Amino acid sequence: MPADSGVPHVLIVGGGFAGLWATRALAGSPVRITLLDRENHHLFQPLLYQVATAGLSAPDISAPLRHILRRQRNVSVLMAEACEVDTARRQVIDANGRAHAYDYLVLATGATHAYFGHDDWSRFAPGLKTLDDALAIRRRILSAFEHAEIEADPVAQAAWLTFAIVGAGPTGVELAGTLAEIARHTLKHEFRRIDPRAARVLLLEAGPRVLSSFPESLSEKARKQLERLGVEVLVGTPVSAIDADGVVLGTQRIAARTVLWSAGVAASPLARSLGVPLDRAGRVPVQGDLSVAGLPEVFVAGDLASVQQEGKPVPGVAPAAKQMGDCVAKVIRARIAGQAAASFRYRDFGNLATIGRMAAVVDVRGWHLSGMFAWWFWLAAHVWFLIGFRNRLVVLIDWARAYWSYQRSARVIVGRNEAGSQAGTESASAANQKT
Amino acid sequence: MPADSGVPHVLIVGGGFAGLWATRALAGSPVRITLLDRENHHLFQPLLYQVATAGLSAPDISAPLRHILRRQRNVSVLMAEACEVDTARRQVIDANGRAHAYDYLVLATGATHAYFGHDDWSRFAPGLKTLDDALAIRRRILSAFEHAEIEADPVAQAAWLTFAIVGAGPTGVELAGTLAEIARHTLKHEFRRIDPRAARVLLLEAGPRVLSSFPESLSEKARKQLERLGVEVLVGTPVSAIDADGVVLGTQRIAARTVLWSAGVAASPLARSLGVPLDRAGRVPVQGDLSVAGLPEVFVAGDLASVQQEGKPVPGVAPAAKQMGDCVAKVIRARIAGQAAASFRYRDFGNLATIGRMAAVVDVRGWHLSGMFAWWFWLAAHVWFLIGFRNRLVVLIDWARAYWSYQRSARVIVGRNEAGSQAGTESASAANQKT
Repeated sequence: MPADSGVPHVLIVGGGFAGLWATRALAGSPVRITLLDRENHHLFQPLLYQVATAGLSAPDISAPLRHILRRQRNVSVLMAEACEVDTARRQVIDANGRAHAYDYLVLATGATHAYFGHDDWSRFAPGLKTLDDALAIRRRILSAFEHAEIEADPVAQAAWLTFAIVGAGPTGVELAGTLAEIARHTLKHEFRRIDPRAARVLLLEAGPRVLSSFPESLSEKARKQLERLGVEVLVGTPVSAIDADGVVLGTQRIAARTVLWSAGVAASPLARSLGVPLDRAGRVPVQGDLSVAGLPEVFVAGDLASVQQEGKPVPGVAPAAKQMGDCVAKVIRARIAGQAAASFRYRDFGNLATIGRMAAVVDVRGWHLSGMFAWWFWLAAHVWFLIGFRNRLVVLIDWARAYWSYQRSARVIVGRNEAGSQAGTESASAANQKT
Repeated sequence: MPADSGVPHVLIVGGGFAGLWATRALAGSPVRITLLDRENHHLFQPLLYQVATAGLSAPDISAPLRHILRRQRNVSVLMAEACEVDTARRQVIDANGRAHAYDYLVLATGATHAYFGHDDWSRFAPGLKTLDDALAIRRRILSAFEHAEIEADPVAQAAWLTFAIVGAGPTGVELAGTLAEIARHTLKHEFRRIDPRAARVLLLEAGPRVLSSFPESLSEKARKQLERLGVEVLVGTPVSAIDADGVVLGTQRIAARTVLWSAGVAASPLARSLGVPLDRAGRVPVQGDLSVAGLPEVFVAGDLASVQQEGKPVPGVAPAAKQMGDCVAKVIRARIAGQAAASFRYRDFGNLATIGRMAAVVDVRGWHLSGMFAWWFWLAAHVWFLIGFRNRLVVLIDWARAYWSYQRSARVIVGRNEAGSQAGTESASAANQKT
């Protein structure tokens, strides 16, 4: 234990935007902080789809938490998976049974995919939340084209060349647009038996439009941009089944060997151990100061928190998570100083979504942009917010190169032991080739 | 099948240096080539240790085979794992049971680790041959420091901070030197409970000296440079057992939670199905033209080939593999033209090994270098031979940054489902944290 153990101990669980921003905002405060995360890195989630689609490598969008925080002397970073909150004893139990005591607890463990009661679909339709998810999706996408090339039967070949993305929120739109670009441009001259441009990219949305968090006019523009890139957009099309061979839409079956999930979101299960009522998605309703009713020393921030503002929910986006992290730090400082703390107010800076090469939509304070200019705006904002000098520079180089050459720099299949992985050449048998 | 199926079909198995160079050297020749590899990428193996030690990301040192070969119209690249050669029917069977017929066969499937009859050691002491190996080793190294930080018991902590590398060939020396640098410099200010500089890095060698393929004076210089970096070098020290807790040297047990294997090499098992006598390491003895005795249409190149020159074996290094690939292409062209082909002659350009920051040894035609100048020589040679513009530039940026800051840009732990992975925080349970 550090020498200054006389000061209150703040335990922050989760090193995403909310947890990391709360940690940083407590620099210099009279507290001792422990940041617990099951990964060793902070992840810049808004660019995760670029790792999944082979545009960036995993280290480009992530940085070790303890490196980011190395100069903040009041923080100790521990890599451990939190499994349970014991609010009576004021401690968090990790996967190895270790207890981590707290005076103040900040839960920022975010959200994961929800399959609406169809958990068996997760094997066939992976979602995109972690670096491992992104590498698994990259492996499936790149391997699908490889399977198609080696497959002699045209029907089987077509199934390998059909990609179905379920859910047309920002992640689904990004994946669909980028996949269409890969098939039409990146791989154009590289196969001898198949024409990758013949690949079908289907974006399936149960609701009436894509990007439902945007104004209707921008949804319509996004749909048009997707179709121009070659994506088949099907709205009002709920999926009724998913298996290894494809998806079922009502009575119609579509043979697709690659199905990706970007539909549902469920809050981290850690919230359940708080013993308070959760909302439908499993999120924790919080007070104005982001603490939990009846548990004033427990705060929830980021995607795990259910916050209403002017009758509307605060969206699960990075800027909201950062603002909540900052707010929690302020409240804790005020509590320690015996002062009253202001309550959380979400400042909405706007909504961006990228669609593909030179295509994006931007909604900033009622200011609507789409197309090329929106894309440059999106690019500048995202590169700017990347953590770490190397990352920004390398990401810019990769993108400049990708822009001029249509090439993607991370087209490398790694990982062969994925549970539920596609059969075929990816067998995990003994190494017998030097590559 | 391509239109020009009237020309002879050359099947090349393995897209490493030998296979890729053979393929490229047959550009423009009247042949149809199929390049089979179980991965989708060519790997620049000499820098693989940098991926394992978090200095480079996986895509930095690899490029998709079909991208490299996209303009060579007589090549078809297929991702499949070759399992058996049926020399009677002149076909290769892959892991999915598909038969690939050939007129000429080039086997270039390289080598893998050998545990000298102790295959159970592979769980505890992974070797370094593929990108997946490198990512698994990176995960173990970075996780070990994380385990040490969270561990309260000082004895268990010391075991997490002890790294044993078995085998002091070039890979073992590179790993040991870089690990010492990570512990002493990279992680210096990032932990709160442990001092990473207290980590022990042991390099265990059964033979009498490190880098036995170099002249004795350079071995001695390498040992001194390693010790200056903080590595404990133990020569004449065979390992008698390896388990989850560490290594046994004779009667002495060393508690080390991270053991890495860089001792033995065994040729790819594919060679066994040729039905010809193999050498002790499982390599195929070849004729002067690199064909197999009794099988004139089958060639073996790279680490899988056992070639003697002036009574000495040609070493298993990248330049030798490239030269063999080029030679096989020449022989095949000559055979088709009905001409006599020259036999293989290995041109030895020298021997390089890097040890760590500013430390290397170079033996070029009897010209011996060590220390800083040798390191610059090694760096220039390796960056120069990297395939692809982006890779060279990004690698240079990463190294320039690493050089000035002592930082490593790929300190990201990915992959949680590794067979035989370390217990602890790496459990593969459901995602419950947003990172």
